[in-house]
Amino acid sequence: MHPEPTPVYLDCDTGIDDALALGHLLASPRADLVGVGCVHGNIDVDAAVENTRRLVTLAGRGDIPVAPGASAPLVGEFAGGAPHVHGVDGIGGVRESLPSPTAVPVDGDAVDLLLRLSREHVGELQLLAIGPLTNLAHALDRDPGLVDRVAGVTVMGGAARVPGNVHPVAEANIWHDPEAAQVVVAAPWPVTLVPLDTTMEHTLDERHRQRLCDSASAYARACGEMLDRYLDFYGEVVLGRRAAALHDPLAAAVMLGEVNRVRSPRVPVEVDCSRGPGRGQTICDLRSQRRLVGDVDGANVRVVLETAPGYVDLLLDLLEQV
Amino acid sequence: MHPEPTPVYLDCDTGIDDALALGHLLASPRADLVGVGCVHGNIDVDAAVENTRRLVTLAGRGDIPVAPGASAPLVGEFAGGAPHVHGVDGIGGVRESLPSPTAVPVDGDAVDLLLRLSREHVGELQLLAIGPLTNLAHALDRDPGLVDRVAGVTVMGGAARVPGNVHPVAEANIWHDPEAAQVVVAAPWPVTLVPLDTTMEHTLDERHRQRLCDSASAYARACGEMLDRYLDFYGEVVLGRRAAALHDPLAAAVMLGEVNRVRSPRVPVEVDCSRGPGRGQTICDLRSQRRLVGDVDGANVRVVLETAPGYVDLLLDLLEQV
Repeated sequence: MHPEPTPVYLDCDTGIDDALALGHLLASPRADLVGVGCVHGNIDVDAAVENTRRLVTLAGRGDIPVAPGASAPLVGEFAGGAPHVHGVDGIGGVRESLPSPTAVPVDGDAVDLLLRLSREHVGELQLLAIGPLTNLAHALDRDPGLVDRVAGVTVMGGAARVPGNVHPVAEANIWHDPEAAQVVVAAPWPVTLVPLDTTMEHTLDERHRQRLCDSASAYARACGEMLDRYLDFYGEVVLGRRAAALHDPLAAAVMLGEVNRVRSPRVPVEVDCSRGPGRGQTICDLRSQRRLVGDVDGANVRVVLETAPGYVDLLLDLLEQV
Repeated sequence: MHPEPTPVYLDCDTGIDDALALGHLLASPRADLVGVGCVHGNIDVDAAVENTRRLVTLAGRGDIPVAPGASAPLVGEFAGGAPHVHGVDGIGGVRESLPSPTAVPVDGDAVDLLLRLSREHVGELQLLAIGPLTNLAHALDRDPGLVDRVAGVTVMGGAARVPGNVHPVAEANIWHDPEAAQVVVAAPWPVTLVPLDTTMEHTLDERHRQRLCDSASAYARACGEMLDRYLDFYGEVVLGRRAAALHDPLAAAVMLGEVNRVRSPRVPVEVDCSRGPGRGQTICDLRSQRRLVGDVDGANVRVVLETAPGYVDLLLDLLEQV
């Protein structure tokens, strides 16, 4: 007997691995994707909206509201995205091959959507943020009571014991809006941080990509096609082998309990909002973990340091069912 | 056949583990300790001088020049030391039981001593810094040509992939003078950083301490006695078992090649001198190490991430020979 699916609000900057996470949420029996907010990050916010609408349309789920959110971080301007990672269109050059969106434009912005959904699903809504945290910070600012209406917040972002990706100690989602990230981790709600420590351990390689390309599912095929470029980048610049890290979809799986957390203590977390060389670092105070393997009293952020292996197979199974 | 011993200038804030490092240098056939400069850090600089002079006198080496150095960091004031770790006298309460110093006061300060030794041993002098790096920064400021006259600089300090000790990401020696540390790692000389990543892996426990207490060497017995307090602190606050990390002496052993470096890439290193939560962090750019296990072109700082086990036995053997 399956439990009731969890209502999920997704906040994303679609993005190749965002597309995988979206596919995971659309196919998983544990999730009921009730709305998507978009944000600057991998690409500008308008492109994120367009990509997301086309992807939900491709999945036959044009009924899911997709709302535009922040076009820039709390401080400063949109950084220009990551075309060298995700392609100029954000999804590896496949946008034009996707169907035109059938989704009806949503009234209001991503914050309006998130606040409305939090009232419709009081105590049940899970937030999954896989881009910069600007929309969530705006939502907390507009309605601090939000913290009491959501069941939890899962964030793909940060690096605790491993190097960053855009800077020596900073991961891209946090780097793109450290001030917003600090607002989110400091708010009195349960946050689960899924950092590079564990997302870099889950990879997809060319063999997996071929399986997607050969799938009966149009969504899976689109993912396979856009991953071509992503594997190039990771192969050349990051990993030294043609494979890619499953950052965003892993966070979806962790949120839904589909991948077991092996080590994930609740510890104090502060985001470095200085202008120094550590800007954008998620400073996780792991000093206690030398003698204590477990949660620190009063800490509201769970840092997922390690997860069980094998997620890529679940992801492929789900994408083939979209 | 032994190689010629290496002339060594030690810069220290003596300190319990400093006393162990000093003993290591005094006994090792690979080292010729030609001078010691003292600095604020674990204790105020005057106490560091007094402790060091008494210890070299105890070892029958009152001939080694011991010079006072900086009493405060480049920016700000002396932080007050760490009496909860090292005791009020800096060496676990044993100072008064040590002989009065016979060492003749040195002309000039630690910087004078260091610069003089660098001219007497051009191209051969190894610097071992096991306190805040204030003296070295002053020396570089006073005579930038120093970089060409020393064989190398080994620093106990920092944390690359593990938590700090005084702050979530900051280790004490660096934290006590980040600006000086940045001067030292940015100077064009070969620096070997021995951070908590490896020093925390080398511990001394009560059984080892008892061996020191039972030794025929007065120096070893003094170390055994002062370690009583150090083991208390580490047991209660850091490790959760009665044992202590061999921070400073391990750096001596690494410098002298008595402990093998297992993993120690040269990578870009920057010290966080901001006023943010990352202040004092040694930001080691290890991103390259995902695909490359080895040195980064142009980087002058070798970060010792891992060393061969077993150092404590060598240390005990050496201390018994002081």
